[in-house]
This record gives sequence, structure tokens and C-alpha cells, in this order.
Amino acid sequence: MRDFSQDHRFLSINTATVRKSHGVELPLSEILDSCARKGIRAVSPWRDQVHAAGLSNVARQIKSLGLELSGYCRGGMFPAIDSAGLSAALDDNRRAVDEAAELKAPCLVLVVGSLPGGLQGRAISKDLSLARTQVRDGIGELLEYAQKVGVPLAIEPLHPMYAADRSCVNTLEQALDLCDELDPRRSGTLGVAVDVYHLWWDPKLQQEIARAGKDRILAFHVCDWMTPTTDMLNDRGMMGDGVINISQIRSWLEAEGFSGYSEVEIFSNNWWQRSHHEVLDVCIERHCQVV
Amino acid sequence: MRDFSQDHRFLSINTATVRKSHGVELPLSEILDSCARKGIRAVSPWRDQVHAAGLSNVARQIKSLGLELSGYCRGGMFPAIDSAGLSAALDDNRRAVDEAAELKAPCLVLVVGSLPGGLQGRAISKDLSLARTQVRDGIGELLEYAQKVGVPLAIEPLHPMYAADRSCVNTLEQALDLCDELDPRRSGTLGVAVDVYHLWWDPKLQQEIARAGKDRILAFHVCDWMTPTTDMLNDRGMMGDGVINISQIRSWLEAEGFSGYSEVEIFSNNWWQRSHHEVLDVCIERHCQVV
Repeated sequence: MRDFSQDHRFLSINTATVRKSHGVELPLSEILDSCARKGIRAVSPWRDQVHAAGLSNVARQIKSLGLELSGYCRGGMFPAIDSAGLSAALDDNRRAVDEAAELKAPCLVLVVGSLPGGLQGRAISKDLSLARTQVRDGIGELLEYAQKVGVPLAIEPLHPMYAADRSCVNTLEQALDLCDELDPRRSGTLGVAVDVYHLWWDPKLQQEIARAGKDRILAFHVCDWMTPTTDMLNDRGMMGDGVINISQIRSWLEAEGFSGYSEVEIFSNNWWQRSHHEVLDVCIERHCQVV
Repeated sequence: MRDFSQDHRFLSINTATVRKSHGVELPLSEILDSCARKGIRAVSPWRDQVHAAGLSNVARQIKSLGLELSGYCRGGMFPAIDSAGLSAALDDNRRAVDEAAELKAPCLVLVVGSLPGGLQGRAISKDLSLARTQVRDGIGELLEYAQKVGVPLAIEPLHPMYAADRSCVNTLEQALDLCDELDPRRSGTLGVAVDVYHLWWDPKLQQEIARAGKDRILAFHVCDWMTPTTDMLNDRGMMGDGVINISQIRSWLEAEGFSGYSEVEIFSNNWWQRSHHEVLDVCIERHCQVV
């Protein structure tokens, strides 16, 4: 297992972590500059932030700062109530693949979606099984395009508490079943993003990480689970502040040969109230101490 | 599959559902009276409510009203930081078994616990694996006692969002693995409580219900999952108000031969603000319409 205690060369910052500074929206360009100045070598930008800054501007800035990407967030949200909706989602995902390619992202992270309308609090279906079929078909179609463009797809299983609204793929086992079905030859173009927040509770996590193997593990996301958790979306913890044994999970990944970045992705009303400089400093510190 | 549309003979009320009326704590005796008056044939009382009313009083009232129990809530909370804590938990669980016997409950429901201190928001361990070992050992010891007394134990897998504080058993598969390990002969004294709120998201739910079989399915709990869910503990929905396809899950249970009560267990700051008469009426209505 790699020693993270001496430096932060394997730290990546998901840009949602410092989406706000002192509660105020922070432009992506400033996030990227701040990361580079602190010796952070990699980032994973969010699509909405990239769109706001302009794709080519972001690509240029990333290149000039010498930053790498650990992923691009995110594609997905496949389910829809009709074929027009399904097509629109697929078109949008193809654009996300193109953007990921332009940014030289190692993968496009997929938050696959679930019951149509669920995210708006007005689910118009209870058919989780149909949503799962639409997700499988959507990933299958997108994969053909992604393979042509050369961008691997990383299915991110989300915590079961998001099963109604954000993702109907809720365990690593389920994500790997999808990978096996859609990419049986293990081409390297379809895999998973392992986020400790979503998966730490799973009694089969170690076993499924071993099943995934190096070629299916495309990203590793860290934060922490707070007890109590006061907000289901935006109360993620800084590594070390919660109950997740993060380094143990990293050891399971590295036993399979994973050697990529450890990407900090914290959605937190608490941390967004602080200065992004402070947040990045704490990310570096905790990366060395507890990841 | 049984027809629930014509009457509510298979409805049971978990007494936590009407723990408060108009926001005020309701004595168990009044809950039992109200249920009986509305033709509800079964209840599942909570231990703290029984203690407050006095065990023998409750036993007498249940008998005189002709009520049945669909379960007794709850034993569990096995993990502890030291052997004294483990022993104390086991002693308390043995008392719960005795109480369940006196109340003629068909099973004692187990919410097994997780990281010591987690429930108080001060987890003093991140060792989920140790908690799971303590749970297995605790259930194993309790089972010997429960078999002597003649009270089946129902392991209730809880939603993964409670994995840190309330239960480290988070899927039906995991609960059934425990059953198979501790009761390989399927004696009928160890099984599971299937609560749609905790399990609806699980892609393996139908498969694991089939694996459970009739002899392992000791209880069936219903409520609904709201989108959005505003409180992780006390925002459960009334059946029909959320996204769970409850009758589909019931059909999977009944395909295995389950013919027990459908127990309504709703923890809800919303419903606790209403009159318990209204809540019980809506439970009856929704039982017939959507369960």
C-alpha cells in the first residue's frame, strides 16, 4: 500500500468540494489556480462548472497549470418517461463524453439516475426495475460511443438512500454485474467509481473490490460519513471526522493494483461556508493522516 | 396473493406509528383500545411503551381486547466496547425475550446495533467488522435462550443509512447469511423481519425473499419512502405517499407462502402531529388500497 503520509502527490480534488468559498460560488478558474498553487496535481471538475467557465478555457487552463484529471463529473441520469426523454438523455451523455475527451479525463463518471421525476420530488413511477433496465440500455448505447471516442465510463454506485432520485445502481456488486453484462471482455472502457461514502457500509465491499480487479476500478472517491448525518445530500464529512475506515478500503483497492488518485469529493453546507483555501489545506492534511 | 381490498383483517399496527397524537405522547393502553375499536386485530408494541404501562397490565389488556401480536419491538443493540457491555446487552435481550413470551408475541424483532457510541453521535470505533462479529455472537447466544423460552428471533436488516448507529445488518442477504450460519437446520426460531422501508431499493430483494422461504419470514413491515426524505429517522411515509411498490414486495413474500400480518410502522414527525384516530383510519384505508 502506498505511503500517503509524506506528501499529497496522489491527492485529487473534486471541484464540488470547493464549489463555494465563504458560502459564495467560486469560479472554476479560481479553484484550479488554488489547487495548482498548493501542489495538488489533479482535479475532477463538474460539468456545470466547466460549462460556466467555457470548455476550451478550462482545457487551456488545465494544460497550462500542468494539472491532470482524475475523472469528469458527470454523465448518467438515463431513465425517462418516454423515448424522446431517453434520446435526449443519451444525446447529453454523448456530449459529456466529448467534453471528457477534450479535457483528457481518464473517465466519465456516471450517476445513472432512477425514477423519472424523483430528483424533483415528484416521482411519476414506482417502477425501479424499469429504471434499471433503462440504465442498462443507456450505458450500453453510450459505451459504443465512448469506445469510439476513447473515454472509459465509470459507473458510480450511489448509497441506497439515493435509490429513488439519483441512482438505481446502489451496490458495487450491482455495478459490476452491469459491467460484466455490457463489457464481458473487460475491454478497459467500462468500470466503476468506488466512493467510500456510498459503499462503506456494504458487507460485501472487500469481496466485490476483489472481483472488480484493477481494470474495472477507474476512480476512488473519499470523504466521510458523519453520525448523525443532518442532511442526506450536503452533510458529507471531511476524511477523519466520521466513521469510515478509509485507509482500509484503500488497502483493498491497492491489493488489486489500483494506483490512481484519491479524489476528495465533499458536498457539505458546513465546509462550503469556510474559505476554500482552508478547505484545501485540511484536505491535504487529512489525505496524509487518514486516507 | 391475498385480497386486502375488502377488509383489514391482516393489518397490524406497530405502536410507534401512533406513539403521539397531536404531538403528545399517547399511553399504550389508549393505543390498544383505539386499535381494537377500529377492528384492528393485531399490534406490535414497543418495549419502552410496554415498560411505561407495566408488562402485566399490557398482557392483560391485550388478552381482554382479543388482540394478537405481530411482533415485539425490539431486542438487539449487541455491540459494546468491552465484555461488561456485551454481557449487559445480552442480559437485556434475555429480558426482552421473556417479555415477548409473556405477551405471546410470535417473534422478538432484533435491531442489532452497530458501532458503539454511534447512536449517541460519538462512535468510538470505526470497526464495522468487529461490530458484525459481536452481533453474530450476540444473536447466537440469545438464540439458545430464546429457543428454551420458545420465542423466535427476527433479525431486521436496516437501511444502509443506519449502518453507523442502529444496525450493521443492512441487507436481507446479510441477515439470511446470519440465519444460515446460526440456524442451519432452519428450526423456525431464527428468521427475518422484512421492512419495505429498509429493503425496497435492493436489486436482490426478490431473489433473497425467495431464498428466505416461508420459515424464515417472521414479520412484514410497511410504510413508504418519501422523495425527498427530510429526516433520516422520522420522515417515513404513509403507504401510497412515496415510491415503494409495496404490493409487489408483498406478492414476493406471499409467493413463498407468507400469510402473516402486514404491520404498519411509520416514524413520522408529520403523522405524529395528527390525531391518532385519523392516522389509524388512514392506515386502514391505505392498507386496503395500496398494500
